[in-house]
Amino acid sequence: MSNFQPSAPRLTVLGAGPGDPELFTLKGVRVLGEADVVLYDALANNDLLSYVRPEARQVFVGKRRGMRSYSQDEINGLIVDYARRYGHVVRLKGGDPFVFGRGREEMLYAEQHGLLTDYVPGISSAVAATGSVGIPVTHRGASEGFQVITATTATGGLSAAVTEAARSRTTTVILMGLSQLGRIVEIFGQHGQSEVPAAIIQNGTLPEARLVTGSVAQLPARAAAASIGAPAIIIIGEVARLAHASAAGPAVFSELLSYAEVA
Amino acid sequence: MSNFQPSAPRLTVLGAGPGDPELFTLKGVRVLGEADVVLYDALANNDLLSYVRPEARQVFVGKRRGMRSYSQDEINGLIVDYARRYGHVVRLKGGDPFVFGRGREEMLYAEQHGLLTDYVPGISSAVAATGSVGIPVTHRGASEGFQVITATTATGGLSAAVTEAARSRTTTVILMGLSQLGRIVEIFGQHGQSEVPAAIIQNGTLPEARLVTGSVAQLPARAAAASIGAPAIIIIGEVARLAHASAAGPAVFSELLSYAEVA
Repeated sequence: MSNFQPSAPRLTVLGAGPGDPELFTLKGVRVLGEADVVLYDALANNDLLSYVRPEARQVFVGKRRGMRSYSQDEINGLIVDYARRYGHVVRLKGGDPFVFGRGREEMLYAEQHGLLTDYVPGISSAVAATGSVGIPVTHRGASEGFQVITATTATGGLSAAVTEAARSRTTTVILMGLSQLGRIVEIFGQHGQSEVPAAIIQNGTLPEARLVTGSVAQLPARAAAASIGAPAIIIIGEVARLAHASAAGPAVFSELLSYAEVA
Repeated sequence: MSNFQPSAPRLTVLGAGPGDPELFTLKGVRVLGEADVVLYDALANNDLLSYVRPEARQVFVGKRRGMRSYSQDEINGLIVDYARRYGHVVRLKGGDPFVFGRGREEMLYAEQHGLLTDYVPGISSAVAATGSVGIPVTHRGASEGFQVITATTATGGLSAAVTEAARSRTTTVILMGLSQLGRIVEIFGQHGQSEVPAAIIQNGTLPEARLVTGSVAQLPARAAAASIGAPAIIIIGEVARLAHASAAGPAVFSELLSYAEVA
């Protein structure tokens, strides 16, 4: 018989932020240090795992090219199983767990199985990666709001939210949309937005960040010419005019950005 | 003649996060410690100012009831003036500086006057205060995206974004909207959304957080009965059904929430 007494089984869903390991919260550092098990996705940056106690378990459950990945059901099962065996499970997710992160789903499953749950937000790349190249999601005279959507639905189709966004005149931020760029440009064109300023940011807030700007219609060719790849976010709206105009930005002193293309 | 050599004049706009002082970033702590001058708004929590060096200047430029507040032009002038005299000005704003924070405006003015500028994001209450009561801005089957708007335009009128949001079926988060609640409910009702779940959160992420839930049509009476006041955010969408259902939430173990009213 073991004398080990696990603490009450519980789950904290925790946001890892947009990539820059300094854009992590003080609460995130504390919570990682209190974890008995950390289940983590493919993150922009694995430096955060250094806050985990050496005796805690670290389990990678994300998707990696060419490797089998866990289904959502399997992850839910792991959370409950690990919490019952070891106590406090921390589920570390890129960005914020409630921005396309399925964080509340995992909490609901855990609650149904008797776990205590908590949510610790992270900085979403929707705002921070966009802002890191000088594009504010809101700006007086340019945008009275913004919407954050994903291009692909849970079932793999093109999200109806793309059409709704194309009808609107607020800033649109599209996460995980690069593979659907052609269709997005077509739909925005059908709603008279071909000439609206736009941008694509790859690896925003990281040293290897890259930026492509242009009108909506120009984006596909420019993204292809610059070989922009995932993870990337697409921004459509007048605010994209405010992107830094030179290779290092006019005034960015703390980050080194490699600009692939500037309109 | 003084031997004091200020560093190159520069401005960092810095997000203070949603209120909980632990929801501040590691980068924010570092930047506050490097500031020569901190210009700060009315914050949810002044604890963050403890990271400022004792020899640095702290200047309150926000709005406080009954006190004259600085105009945006005056704040712009102060930023440039302080940076030229003392070096590094940090402009600390609640939430994220680019989410209705006029952060890019201040950066553009500073850049035009020769300052280096940088942006350090903060966690927006749009996502974090909403999430803190169990409402995720996105959730499979309930919302394929979210939009963040303010009810009042820069000129004081009702924002056209409210009508655009009422036409959409994604989650709507309305910041600084409590004084316009009656008009918001009316417009969402005109677009067939009177019975959609909704919530109001006051002081989200702080110990004194309060929550009101109900249908869109029920919100004004329930908010009045609970004497909900600013600062508060309004959430409209199916995701509001996921708000914690009991006084302390079914499973919230790290925050004590006083629930004013639960549907």
